[in-house]
Amino acid sequence: MNLREALHWRYAVKLFDRTRTLSTEQIEELAEVVRMAPTSLGLQPFRLLIVDDPAVKAQLDTACHRQQKQPGSASHVFIFAAPTAVDEPFWREYVDRAARERHLPPEKRGEFETRVRNYITSKSEAELPHWVEKQVYLAAGQLLLAAALAGIDACPMEGFDRNEADRILGLRQMGLRSVLLCPLGHRSPMDTFAAVKKVRLPRDRFVIAP
Amino acid sequence: MNLREALHWRYAVKLFDRTRTLSTEQIEELAEVVRMAPTSLGLQPFRLLIVDDPAVKAQLDTACHRQQKQPGSASHVFIFAAPTAVDEPFWREYVDRAARERHLPPEKRGEFETRVRNYITSKSEAELPHWVEKQVYLAAGQLLLAAALAGIDACPMEGFDRNEADRILGLRQMGLRSVLLCPLGHRSPMDTFAAVKKVRLPRDRFVIAP
Repeated sequence: MNLREALHWRYAVKLFDRTRTLSTEQIEELAEVVRMAPTSLGLQPFRLLIVDDPAVKAQLDTACHRQQKQPGSASHVFIFAAPTAVDEPFWREYVDRAARERHLPPEKRGEFETRVRNYITSKSEAELPHWVEKQVYLAAGQLLLAAALAGIDACPMEGFDRNEADRILGLRQMGLRSVLLCPLGHRSPMDTFAAVKKVRLPRDRFVIAP
Repeated sequence: MNLREALHWRYAVKLFDRTRTLSTEQIEELAEVVRMAPTSLGLQPFRLLIVDDPAVKAQLDTACHRQQKQPGSASHVFIFAAPTAVDEPFWREYVDRAARERHLPPEKRGEFETRVRNYITSKSEAELPHWVEKQVYLAAGQLLLAAALAGIDACPMEGFDRNEADRILGLRQMGLRSVLLCPLGHRSPMDTFAAVKKVRLPRDRFVIAP
């Protein structure tokens, strides 16, 4: 699908076709988009859970507001999960790995460590989770576009009970918390939302001249 | 460029080639990606400014931390700008427009209005700007991937003086505030950062089994 077609073809699917599953290759391609997404300083302050177990997907339905059926009907659910603490062990692991992979001499390594430390410690405890979530959303944007270009349907979901999702997925024991759900698969022919007109600001109102 | 190539080819450009400009068609295609990006309830709580005036781009350099040169050297700078107030006039305009374009009968229109009102008013004054920024980042993710697929370089920038950028661009008079800058163009052959190894968590550490 070309870019313009994909932008108009996609919509936030409300019901997936339970009989159609995505291939391992398709899922790996989409996971790679998320893994390679840019993040501030390359810190990647999130991880990706991929769920295809029907029982777990059905449980996730119960964590969604307004009795939504996307996770349970989807082929796979991508869950963006952030570390509960973006603390020194978290960022130091990244600094060590980056310094090693880039063969940084000690002085350059020290500069890089200082830069990352200053960056993280400049943010308040209230700001850090928001910074993390913004990185997640940027990666999610790439995922959604890549999926649409491949003819794969999706529904980004932020309206769900995070505590309940964390419990279902066992995230807290892994030091993680759920940020965004993205069920993936193919739209059901029964999903009447596919026919709802997509409403966007016209170009001349959306793009502002300085 | 295919998807995997684009993911590895792109990087956060530090210096653009000042002699290479993007065509109107390229810019319009990328603006369309941002305009069509999904947002919560379709509310599109941001606008896009496109700057190609050399004097304005050079001024934006001065608003960037650490004397960065991306805006001034880029062909174009996309600025994601959010309304300073996501208030009733803001969301009501959307409800009116969506109801009109979708030919909603009065009852359905009322339900939609209630849903949007409840959604917005459920968020605290502190939460609203964060919600807005997440929508911006999702759209920015789509922009960055679309650019890379088209062989266009970019650099998402969140480290800049927002007050200064707002002043340069006259955003406050338009009821807007800058959220994210994205200079676009072609990398300079002098940008040594193109050769820096891209560091990402390996697949088996990034993707977590539930």
